[in-house]
Amino acid sequence: MNLSGIIGYSITPFNDEDGQVDYENLAPVIDTLLDAQVDAIAALGSAGEAAYLTTTEWQQVAEYTVKRVDGRVPVVIGIAELTTAEAINRAKFAYQIGADMIMVSPFSYYKLNEEELFLHYQSISNATPLPIMIYNNPATCGVDMSPQFMLRMVSDIKNACMIKESTGDIQRMHKIYKLSKGKVPFFNGCNHMALEALNAGASGWCTVAPCLIGKQTKYLFDAVQQQNNHKASELFYQQYEFLEFIVQSGLAAAVKSGFSIQGTPMGGPRKPLLPLTATAQQQLKTLLLELGSHA
Amino acid sequence: MNLSGIIGYSITPFNDEDGQVDYENLAPVIDTLLDAQVDAIAALGSAGEAAYLTTTEWQQVAEYTVKRVDGRVPVVIGIAELTTAEAINRAKFAYQIGADMIMVSPFSYYKLNEEELFLHYQSISNATPLPIMIYNNPATCGVDMSPQFMLRMVSDIKNACMIKESTGDIQRMHKIYKLSKGKVPFFNGCNHMALEALNAGASGWCTVAPCLIGKQTKYLFDAVQQQNNHKASELFYQQYEFLEFIVQSGLAAAVKSGFSIQGTPMGGPRKPLLPLTATAQQQLKTLLLELGSHA
Amino acid sequence: MNLSGIIGYSITPFNDEDGQVDYENLAPVIDTLLDAQVDAIAALGSAGEAAYLTTTEWQQVAEYTVKRVDGRVPVVIGIAELTTAEAINRAKFAYQIGADMIMVSPFSYYKLNEEELFLHYQSISNATPLPIMIYNNPATCGVDMSPQFMLRMVSDIKNACMIKESTGDIQRMHKIYKLSKGKVPFFNGCNHMALEALNAGASGWCTVAPCLIGKQTKYLFDAVQQQNNHKASELFYQQYEFLEFIVQSGLAAAVKSGFSIQGTPMGGPRKPLLPLTATAQQQLKTLLLELGSHA
Amino acid sequence: MNLSGIIGYSITPFNDEDGQVDYENLAPVIDTLLDAQVDAIAALGSAGEAAYLTTTEWQQVAEYTVKRVDGRVPVVIGIAELTTAEAINRAKFAYQIGADMIMVSPFSYYKLNEEELFLHYQSISNATPLPIMIYNNPATCGVDMSPQFMLRMVSDIKNACMIKESTGDIQRMHKIYKLSKGKVPFFNGCNHMALEALNAGASGWCTVAPCLIGKQTKYLFDAVQQQNNHKASELFYQQYEFLEFIVQSGLAAAVKSGFSIQGTPMGGPRKPLLPLTATAQQQLKTLLLELGSHA
Repeated sequence: MNLSGIIGYSITPFNDEDGQVDYENLAPVIDTLLDAQVDAIAALGSAGEAAYLTTTEWQQVAEYTVKRVDGRVPVVIGIAELTTAEAINRAKFAYQIGADMIMVSPFSYYKLNEEELFLHYQSISNATPLPIMIYNNPATCGVDMSPQFMLRMVSDIKNACMIKESTGDIQRMHKIYKLSKGKVPFFNGCNHMALEALNAGASGWCTVAPCLIGKQTKYLFDAVQQQNNHKASELFYQQYEFLEFIVQSGLAAAVKSGFSIQGTPMGGPRKPLLPLTATAQQQLKTLLLELGSHA
Repeated sequence: MNLSGIIGYSITPFNDEDGQVDYENLAPVIDTLLDAQVDAIAALGSAGEAAYLTTTEWQQVAEYTVKRVDGRVPVVIGIAELTTAEAINRAKFAYQIGADMIMVSPFSYYKLNEEELFLHYQSISNATPLPIMIYNNPATCGVDMSPQFMLRMVSDIKNACMIKESTGDIQRMHKIYKLSKGKVPFFNGCNHMALEALNAGASGWCTVAPCLIGKQTKYLFDAVQQQNNHKASELFYQQYEFLEFIVQSGLAAAVKSGFSIQGTPMGGPRKPLLPLTATAQQQLKTLLLELGSHA
Repeated sequence: MNLSGIIGYSITPFNDEDGQVDYENLAPVIDTLLDAQVDAIAALGSAGEAAYLTTTEWQQVAEYTVKRVDGRVPVVIGIAELTTAEAINRAKFAYQIGADMIMVSPFSYYKLNEEELFLHYQSISNATPLPIMIYNNPATCGVDMSPQFMLRMVSDIKNACMIKESTGDIQRMHKIYKLSKGKVPFFNGCNHMALEALNAGASGWCTVAPCLIGKQTKYLFDAVQQQNNHKASELFYQQYEFLEFIVQSGLAAAVKSGFSIQGTPMGGPRKPLLPLTATAQQQLKTLLLELGSHA
Repeated sequence: MNLSGIIGYSITPFNDEDGQVDYENLAPVIDTLLDAQVDAIAALGSAGEAAYLTTTEWQQVAEYTVKRVDGRVPVVIGIAELTTAEAINRAKFAYQIGADMIMVSPFSYYKLNEEELFLHYQSISNATPLPIMIYNNPATCGVDMSPQFMLRMVSDIKNACMIKESTGDIQRMHKIYKLSKGKVPFFNGCNHMALEALNAGASGWCTVAPCLIGKQTKYLFDAVQQQNNHKASELFYQQYEFLEFIVQSGLAAAVKSGFSIQGTPMGGPRKPLLPLTATAQQQLKTLLLELGSHA
């Protein structure tokens, strides 16, 4: 599987009245990403509040997404389960419904050591032919995987073939690039480090931003590809405060708020998560206006 | 509710063949704690692998524990859910089955801010009359709550009445003691800091250690109460390496291994968690022998 | 050398007009410590602003202190030099003037590895027969030494014979105690952890607090020795906010401010260090009044 | 003063026999930097072991450097003193000998607050007309200054006009750029982040690397300027392991070792600093060979 560019992440809309997933609103989320010309769509990542869904809800969102995208771009399904057994169940399900790839992170209660992590990934790989993106995000998942360890998994586990790095430490990307001699594709998962990640050799950028700012992330990716540094830098700094804002406010809450500002209410995030405060919502509105988004 | 002394934590035995909860073995776990003269029993904490159980398993373990203890000591049920809705369900269930108290920690994917945390605890308190022990353990739960904030919750949320502090920072206990003028009971959740916590005014010690070393934790508690410092220090340093070992090896894996060493196999922890390595198991055996436990 | 109890630290008074060391005021500082019945006096530690003195000033303060104490209690001289050569010079000087012990910490610009640290201490030990207290204070010195490493130095370097631990991590003290089987004396260097350090087996407490609160630190030490836990706890919590305050405000600035409040102005600390703000000074005044000190 | 490009840092050679500064060898160090076409030369930074020199040595090295450079490029003199008084003395001296700029970092024993830092910089600025580069390097200096605070100093302190950022956190550079609307020049002080820093808008790169790898840092700077991303990335990754190696080994020890490998022994660093181990020296030799330097 040859993936590069912008991987657009969807959110999971809830109905404010009964708190249930609002599938009628999931359609425009996916359409917004396709309109933004993303190179792939990823459902059920952090932004999709996957950790807060029931198994059934998770399955329905995954299935709905695959159907709605309908082959126009590849679909990646996020898996971040506490038990290996449940991660396997979900990996199998993703394959059954026709997803193109799974993104697997080791959500944890007890810290996991490398042997535990390796067997977790290996067991998932053995359960499905889908390619696996190894996703490192210690801030949400509670486990940090070194570049060396992730590259060992790419080398030794059949379907593990790419890495998403979200620590925000650019040195991790240097290590992945150097140690793999530029051969193992890695993606940026830290929005406000996108410029540097792409310059350091990232194959692409995993981001929920296209939900709100359309093609602008794509333009940034293209500028770097075209070696147009001045334009890349200009585009990045235009988006910078917005990108930092959504990271620091919590992706799900911030993007849902942004949709609401833009006229398509998506409900709040699931409790205990709260929507943005009125002040934060006003800040976001200003940032979107500055970016020329229809806020 | 007036709780003090040793709160003994149970593990959740699994059947190695099918991976299911092994209720036949849960009985001796509870009996071991009662034999160790603990002042209360807590089920479904970290040591109980609560995070790795299905809802049904969690309910059955809770119910089984209350029945087996049968009023001989109070029963505390741990709740560490990602959504407020599910935490409420479990709090109601704990009340229905006759538990005496719930211990609530804010397990998290996205970091929670204080407003989110407050509403989470308040909603649970509104759903059940059970007293609530606020449990702070950022290493497993991903959220850190300050002494100031936890005391505010004790003050402003009806059923919140005590604190379990597990950061391992003795200053947190000083703060709780000083800011509450010694009025808000707090418990030690960091095994290898038990001596200091008790000297700093902790009402008791939440620990899985009695599963393996019987009354020795109780003896330590008593020595501090009796102002027998030399004995308290001697007892603490005798247990110290064992306590540090089980914390660093992961409580569930270590205690299950210890039961196996002592002749009552309890199965391994649930994957991705792995049992102790052979080397670690040998270390634990030596530590138990040194402590005079029947290893 | 058999040292235990309270090691009282002196400050270095400056003349506010010309910024020079004010020897007339150094006398009452030392006398205050002696009146507080400290078991030893240490000059030129953090509280003594040793890092901010010229070589000549450092020598004069050391010499003055030894003369003024005049054998009534042992005198410890602090050495925290960037180069090994200068540390040796100062160690020799301390010996020449009749000091009883040196306290050596590895002040650093580049981080030092264990081989560098070992040779630094060894070279100093070879240059003087004075016993050496190894002082670990990464917050000011920029290097952290593990209990294991410090114990290796005590074992392998002739004059290295005791440890002062100032990280504020009680586990370090447990390690020192356990690994040395209680044989290597260690001192508490973290004021607001004094109760726990003494209960964990510390031989004593290194503190500038007697400058302002007289015998109260001694009373706390005695209460622990006499196994009077309730009194020890009461005394500790009485002093707690004061101890935390002077640590967080910077020992030198806080204690100088306290002397001023008590009617013996000692000048401000040396720039860039600033005296306490008016607000902080008022806080300190209140804390001293609560402690019954003549504020 | 309009500075950009490569600011080359010199080391301070010592005579291995008597440990004194070896001025005969300082000449080739400076010449090597000039041959590497650096845009400015900085003496007495971290690499120059300024913290380990006596006042007299420091003055002589500063004076020698200015004379040897003789106006061919601007000369920057590093100042990292513990007291404001001594920092002022050195700033005046730098002006007297004809240096073009001073680079000031707040070396600390006690942590300094922003008021203390501000007054420190302001006092230095009042003492000399030389432009000041504010240098933030918490790893060696023990104090961390935020982008917001440094920009405030640039705005409010007469001679403070540029920033050198060495935390290794690319977000600091984004902040400086955005908050100053690209108006305040900042330099990269973290060698193995040079590519990203330049892409993020840094005016240049402060580095000791040209001592060993000649014009290669300049080529990297030029490639970014020319928007030749592929070449910039290729050059950066060629140098990457070397850059990371010298940072992690300690700049002074590593560069002195490199000079020795290249046939111009410069003595070891001053104790307690030690030269590279034999193994590390072999690694460095290999890295230099791979870079085509005459190793």
